[in-house]
Amino acid sequence: MSFSSDTLRGDKPQLDQLLSWLASYGKTKDNGVTRLLYSKEWQDAQLALYELMESYGLKAYFDDAGNLFGRIEGTEDSQATILTGSHVDSVVNGGRFDGAFGIVASLQAVSQLLSDHGPPKKTIEVVSLCEEEGSRFPLTFWGSGNITGVHDLKKTPPVRDAEGVGLEAAMHEAGFGKRMHPDPYRNDITCFLELHIEQGNVLERSGNSIGLVTDIVGQKRYTVTIKGASNHAGTTPMQNREDALAAASECIYYMTKEAKKTDPHLVATAGKMSVKPNVPNVIAESAEFTVDIRHHNEDLLEKFSHDLFAAFERISNQSEVKMAVSQWTNVKPVPLNADLKKLFAEEADALNISYQEMTSGAGHDSQVFGTYCPTMLVFVPSHKGISHSPLEWTNNEDLTSGCKLLTSALYQLAYE
Amino acid sequence: MSFSSDTLRGDKPQLDQLLSWLASYGKTKDNGVTRLLYSKEWQDAQLALYELMESYGLKAYFDDAGNLFGRIEGTEDSQATILTGSHVDSVVNGGRFDGAFGIVASLQAVSQLLSDHGPPKKTIEVVSLCEEEGSRFPLTFWGSGNITGVHDLKKTPPVRDAEGVGLEAAMHEAGFGKRMHPDPYRNDITCFLELHIEQGNVLERSGNSIGLVTDIVGQKRYTVTIKGASNHAGTTPMQNREDALAAASECIYYMTKEAKKTDPHLVATAGKMSVKPNVPNVIAESAEFTVDIRHHNEDLLEKFSHDLFAAFERISNQSEVKMAVSQWTNVKPVPLNADLKKLFAEEADALNISYQEMTSGAGHDSQVFGTYCPTMLVFVPSHKGISHSPLEWTNNEDLTSGCKLLTSALYQLAYE
Repeated sequence: MSFSSDTLRGDKPQLDQLLSWLASYGKTKDNGVTRLLYSKEWQDAQLALYELMESYGLKAYFDDAGNLFGRIEGTEDSQATILTGSHVDSVVNGGRFDGAFGIVASLQAVSQLLSDHGPPKKTIEVVSLCEEEGSRFPLTFWGSGNITGVHDLKKTPPVRDAEGVGLEAAMHEAGFGKRMHPDPYRNDITCFLELHIEQGNVLERSGNSIGLVTDIVGQKRYTVTIKGASNHAGTTPMQNREDALAAASECIYYMTKEAKKTDPHLVATAGKMSVKPNVPNVIAESAEFTVDIRHHNEDLLEKFSHDLFAAFERISNQSEVKMAVSQWTNVKPVPLNADLKKLFAEEADALNISYQEMTSGAGHDSQVFGTYCPTMLVFVPSHKGISHSPLEWTNNEDLTSGCKLLTSALYQLAYE
Repeated sequence: MSFSSDTLRGDKPQLDQLLSWLASYGKTKDNGVTRLLYSKEWQDAQLALYELMESYGLKAYFDDAGNLFGRIEGTEDSQATILTGSHVDSVVNGGRFDGAFGIVASLQAVSQLLSDHGPPKKTIEVVSLCEEEGSRFPLTFWGSGNITGVHDLKKTPPVRDAEGVGLEAAMHEAGFGKRMHPDPYRNDITCFLELHIEQGNVLERSGNSIGLVTDIVGQKRYTVTIKGASNHAGTTPMQNREDALAAASECIYYMTKEAKKTDPHLVATAGKMSVKPNVPNVIAESAEFTVDIRHHNEDLLEKFSHDLFAAFERISNQSEVKMAVSQWTNVKPVPLNADLKKLFAEEADALNISYQEMTSGAGHDSQVFGTYCPTMLVFVPSHKGISHSPLEWTNNEDLTSGCKLLTSALYQLAYE
C-alpha cells in the first residue's frame, strides 16, 4: 500500500486514516503490527513515510542509522532545528499507535502549519526514529541514541537477533551504516517534542485528553531466586519446611503493600515467576521471580529498593530459605523541560483541551533527548491502558486534541 | 537377578541386602526404581518375591488383581488371617524403600518367627500389594482396594496410562483379571500391619527410631485460579491494578501464616503455580496455584478450608481480581487401631526401641485397611524426609529396629 492509495487519495487524510495506512506495513493476522528494526516491513514503512514527507512539501532524508527526517528550512534561523516525532519500530504483534502516532501527528501538524502560515522562521524537522523498543536486538533507543551520542553506529554493539543476525549486518543489509547517508550525530537540535500514547490508564480514569509529562521514571529490574528444599507436602510439618514458594509469596505480598504505602507514583511489580518442581503435593524447592521498580525521584527509588531487599533478606532468614538477587536494569530518572511544559499548558488552556501533569512510567525516546536538549513528552489516553497489543486503542478525538496541541506549540516555537 | 544370586547365597540376607535385590527389578540409571503396575519390571519383582516366599517356607499365591501373598497356616485358627506387608509398585524414578521395606521386613519377620518358634497358632500372610502409588494409571490403592472391596476388578475403571493402554488390558496382559487366580476380595483378615518409611523429617529431627501412627490425615486439594488484567508495569499505578500474581501471593502468604497458627499437625501447601503472560514488565493477567491441605481431624480440616477460601475471596475483592476454586481431592481422615498401637508401644518398650506417636501426612494402604479391619502403620525415619526419589534413604539400624518390632508384635498376635 502506498500513501497515494485510495484511502489517502483526495482530501488530506485524517490521523486515524494515516495510522491505518502506516499499520499496513508489518500488519499481523491479529490486525496488529510487527515492524522490527531494519526488517523488510520496517524498510517499506520508512520508504512510504519518505514519500509522504516529500508529498507534504518536506525535504526527506535518512541518516546513516536509518532515522528518517522531513525538513522545513527556517526563513530566519536555519541552523537551529526543532525536532518532533517518535519511533517507527514496534514490538512483535504490537499496536498501531505506539510510536507511529508521534510520527504522523508531527507530519500533520507541520503540513497544517505550512498550509496556514507558509514556512517557519526556525527550521523544523519531523523524525521517524529507527528504533526504540529493543524488540529485535537486545538494545533500545538505537535511533535517538545515535542522534544524541549515546550510541555510535561506528561502534555497533555485538548484539544478535533471535535468528543470530548481528546488528551491523542487518543495518548494512538495509542500506545503512555504509556512509551513504549523513552521520546521525547532531549538534543543531534545540528541542525535541514527542507525542505518544500513554500506555497506562491514568488519563482514561481522570477523563483528561492530554498528559504533560514532567519526568520519565527511573527503572530498576531484578531477578530474585529463592532456594528452599523440596519435600513431601503431607509429611513435612509447617515448622520444618524450607518452602521457596511460600517465601517468594511473602516477599511479593510485602513489596506490593509497601509500594502502595510509600508514594502514589511508585510502582513495583513481580510479573514473572517460575517454581520448581512445580508439583501440587511437593513443597517448592525453588522459586524465581522478577522485580520491576520505577519512580521519577532517584533518592526515593534507591531507598525503596535498598529497604525492599533488606526485608526480603529478613523474610528469607525467617523462612529458612536462601535468597539471591541479580539486577539487570538500572535506568536513572530523567526530568523533562519545565519551560516547554509551561508552553504546552498555556496552549492547551487556549485550545480548551483538558490536561494534567504526570510522570511517564514507561521509557521513551524523550528520555534520551531529555539529557541532551530541552524535551517535552505529551501523552494521549490509552483505552484501558492497553499497549504492545493489537488491542491498543485511542479514539480519534483524543488523537486530534494531541495533534492540535502539538501544532499550536510548534507555531509558538517556530513561527513567533 | 534372582533371590538365589550371590548376594543372597549362604547366610540369610540382611534387610538392606534384600532391598538392594528387590530394587534391581526396575532399577533406573540414577540408581532409583521405576516399577509401574503390571509392567515387565513389576512382574519380574512379584515373581522374584514369589520364589523368595517359597524358599522361606511360605505358601505363595497371587490373587486375581496381582496381589502376591505368602501364607503360613495357623495351627489353632487357620481361618482368621493376620496380614502384614506393603506395596511393590513405585513412582517413576522413586526410591528403594517406599513400599518395598514393608514387604521384605514382613518376610524377614515371619521367617525369623518360623525359625525360632515353628508355625504360629494363627495364620499369617505376608502381602506384596500390587498397587498403591497411582503412578501408571490415575487411580490409587488398586491392591488394597480390591482386597477390601473399595475397588472391584470385575468393574475395572476406564482409566488409561500415558501410552493410552487401559487398566483392564494391562491387567490381562500381565495374566490377571482372567479368573485364573482367587478373587481378591477377602473377609478373613483380622488385622493389617504395615511397616513404611516416614517420608517426612519428624523422626529424624526427634531422634526416635519408630513412629506409631495414630491417624492417617484427610486431604483436600484444590486449584485456585485468579484472573486480573494484564497491563504495563511502568504506567499503571498501584491503585489501578488488577494484579493476579500479587493477589495470589497474598493468598499463599495468608494460608501459610494461618496454617502455622492453627494446629501443629495441620499442613497447607501451594506447590504449583503458573502465571500468564509471565513477563517481567507486564502485570500478571492470571495466576493459578494449587492448595493441598491435610489434617487428621475432619472438623478442623473442614473449618480451616472453609475459612481459608472465605479469606481468599476477601483478598480477591480487595485486589479487584476474580477468583475461582475447583476441588479435585477430598479424602477423609482415617484413625488407626488403638489396641494395636498399645501392643506395638509395649513391644517397643520391651525391646528398648525409642518411639513416638504421630500422624501420617501421606496416604498409605493402611488407610484403606483402616476402615475395614484393625490396622497399624509403623514408620521408620526417612533421611532428610526425602521420598519418591533415588535419594530416599533409611539406615540399616532403623530398618532393623522396625523389623524387630514387627517380629515381636507378630509373635504376640499369632503365637500367644
